[in-house]
Amino acid sequence: MTFAMIGTWRMAYEGLSKGMELMKNGGNSSDAVETAIKEVEDYPFFKSVGYGGLPNANGLVEMDSAFMDGDTFAVGAVAGISDIKNPISVSRKLSKEHFNSFLVGSGASEYAVLNGFERKSMLTARAKKIWEKRKREIAQENLSPYDGHDTVGMISLDPKCSMAVGTSTSGLFMKKPGRTGDSALVGDGFYCDSEIGGAAATGLGEDIMKGCLCYEIVRLMGTGLTPQAACDKAVYPFIDKLKKRYGKVGEFSLVALNNKGEWGVATNVEFTFAAGDNKNAPKIMMANPGEDGTTVIEPITKKWLDAYELRIKAPID
Amino acid sequence: MTFAMIGTWRMAYEGLSKGMELMKNGGNSSDAVETAIKEVEDYPFFKSVGYGGLPNANGLVEMDSAFMDGDTFAVGAVAGISDIKNPISVSRKLSKEHFNSFLVGSGASEYAVLNGFERKSMLTARAKKIWEKRKREIAQENLSPYDGHDTVGMISLDPKCSMAVGTSTSGLFMKKPGRTGDSALVGDGFYCDSEIGGAAATGLGEDIMKGCLCYEIVRLMGTGLTPQAACDKAVYPFIDKLKKRYGKVGEFSLVALNNKGEWGVATNVEFTFAAGDNKNAPKIMMANPGEDGTTVIEPITKKWLDAYELRIKAPID
Repeated sequence: MTFAMIGTWRMAYEGLSKGMELMKNGGNSSDAVETAIKEVEDYPFFKSVGYGGLPNANGLVEMDSAFMDGDTFAVGAVAGISDIKNPISVSRKLSKEHFNSFLVGSGASEYAVLNGFERKSMLTARAKKIWEKRKREIAQENLSPYDGHDTVGMISLDPKCSMAVGTSTSGLFMKKPGRTGDSALVGDGFYCDSEIGGAAATGLGEDIMKGCLCYEIVRLMGTGLTPQAACDKAVYPFIDKLKKRYGKVGEFSLVALNNKGEWGVATNVEFTFAAGDNKNAPKIMMANPGEDGTTVIEPITKKWLDAYELRIKAPID
Repeated sequence: MTFAMIGTWRMAYEGLSKGMELMKNGGNSSDAVETAIKEVEDYPFFKSVGYGGLPNANGLVEMDSAFMDGDTFAVGAVAGISDIKNPISVSRKLSKEHFNSFLVGSGASEYAVLNGFERKSMLTARAKKIWEKRKREIAQENLSPYDGHDTVGMISLDPKCSMAVGTSTSGLFMKKPGRTGDSALVGDGFYCDSEIGGAAATGLGEDIMKGCLCYEIVRLMGTGLTPQAACDKAVYPFIDKLKKRYGKVGEFSLVALNNKGEWGVATNVEFTFAAGDNKNAPKIMMANPGEDGTTVIEPITKKWLDAYELRIKAPID
C-alpha cells in the first residue's frame, strides 16, 4: 500500500504533510494535491503563491494554477486569475469540464465567483510594502524588476495507484499585467500519467516552457528510467541546448514522482523541496546541480531553516 | 536551396502562397509565417480566425495565438486577446522578450495597444448573425453550444534552414469568456526546432493539450522518423489511450514539417490542409484517418472547393 508525495520548495512542507496524512486515512491523490496546495496558498508569508503573493507591475496579485488527474489526463487550469482565495480549487473544478477547462484573465475570475469560490483580496499589507519598495528601487537604481517566481507544484500517488499533479503561483514579481508562465501549461509546468508518474516545474516560466520538460520527464520514466535519471536526462541537456541556441537561460527546478513512490529532482540553482512516502515521514531537502548533469541532494540544515524563517518574516523597510 | 511550408485547413492556402512567394524572394521563415497567418486573420469569411471569427458566449471575439522561432526556441503567445487586428504579429513581437512573453486577457490587449498594434473590432456583421442564430437555437432546442474550433497553424522552412511556427484562432464558438485551448500552449498547440522540424495542431484544444502532441511529433522526427511516420506514431495511439482513459475524445488534426521540407499529417476527422515547397507549388489537399493508425491523403476535388466557397459565404437566416 504505497503512497507518496513530492512538492517544490520548502514552502511545500506543511501542505504536503497534510496531504500525506489525508492519504494515510484513505484520501485520494487528487484530494491530497488540492489540500496541500491550498495550505500553501493560504499562508501569508509565502510571497510567490496565493495570499501574500507578490503583485504585478500594477499592484494586482494575478495567479496561475493547474490541476491534472493522472488517471484520465483531465486538466483544469487558470491564468491571470485575481481576487480568488484558492486558485487550485478552481483548477480542480475546471478539470471536470470537457469544454472550457482552461480559463484566463477576468473570465477565470468571473467563473470562480459564479461557481461559489471564495473571493478574497490577495494582496497583504506586507506584499504591498515589498511592491512599493521595489518600485522605489527600480526608479532610483534602474534595477531589473523581475525576481521571485517560485511555483508550488505537488505530485501525489495514493494507495490505489492514482496520481495527480497541481501547481499554483502568483508568478513573476512585477510582471506585466496578464503575464503567465509555465505553471498552467500542460507538459511545460506539469504532467501526470498514473500508469507512469508525474512531474512539476518551478523557475523562469518563459524559459521552462521552451522545453516541454514535464512531459519529457514523464515520457522518460515511461521508458523505464527512475525519476532521478529521467529528471537528469531531460533537464540538464536541455539547459545546455537553450544556452547555446537562445544565448541565456533562467532558473529551472523540476520534481518528479513515479507510480512506485520513487522521486527525483533536477535544478540549475539551489532548490529546496519536500517529499515523503508511507515509510518515510515528509521532510525538507535541498538539491543543487552536481557535476556532469547530475543532481546533489542533501538533508536541509537547521541553520538554513532558521534563516529562512527569519527572512520570510523580516520587517520591510 | 529547399524551402517549404504547411498550414492547417483550406483557409491556409492563400496566406501560405504569399509566405512561399516571400521566401522565394529571400524572406525568412518567421516573416513567411507571420505574413501567411495575417492573411488568414484578415479574411472575413474564415469564421474561426481573426476578423470574422465567431465570438464567445458574450458576443466578444477573444483570440489565441502563438509564435515560435525554431532557431532559438523563443516563444511569444497571447490568450484571450480582443479588438486587435493581427494577434500573430503581437505573438511574434512578444517572442523577442525574455520576460513577459506570454500575455493573457486584458493584459494582452493592453500590451498590443501600447505597442502600436492596430485596434479593430473583430466581430463582423456576419459573425454576429451566426452568434445570434446559435443563441436562438440553443434556447429553443437545448443544443450543445460548441462547434467550430479551427486554428490556423503554419510551419515554414526557409532556404537558410531556419524554421518557425505560428498559430491563430478565435477558439471554440460560444466558449465561456476567457476560455483558451491548445493554440497558445508550447508543445501542445505548436512546437519547432530548426535542427529537426515543427508541428502544429487544430481541433478540440481541451483534449489536444492532454497529449503534448506537437512536442512529441518533433521529438519523434528527431529520432529519424519522417514527418508522416512521426504524426501517425504520436497521434493515433494517444487518441486510443485518451478514449480508454478519459472515455471520449474530440477532434484532432496535426501537421508537421521537417528541415528537409518533408511533411506529414494525422487526423481523426476529415481535414484539409495546404502545403508547398520550392519544387511544388502550394496546393490544397485532404486527409482522413486510414486503417491501423495511418493517414490517407488525397488531392482536393473541385466539387469540395466549390461547396466550401458557397458554404462560407451562404446567407445566414
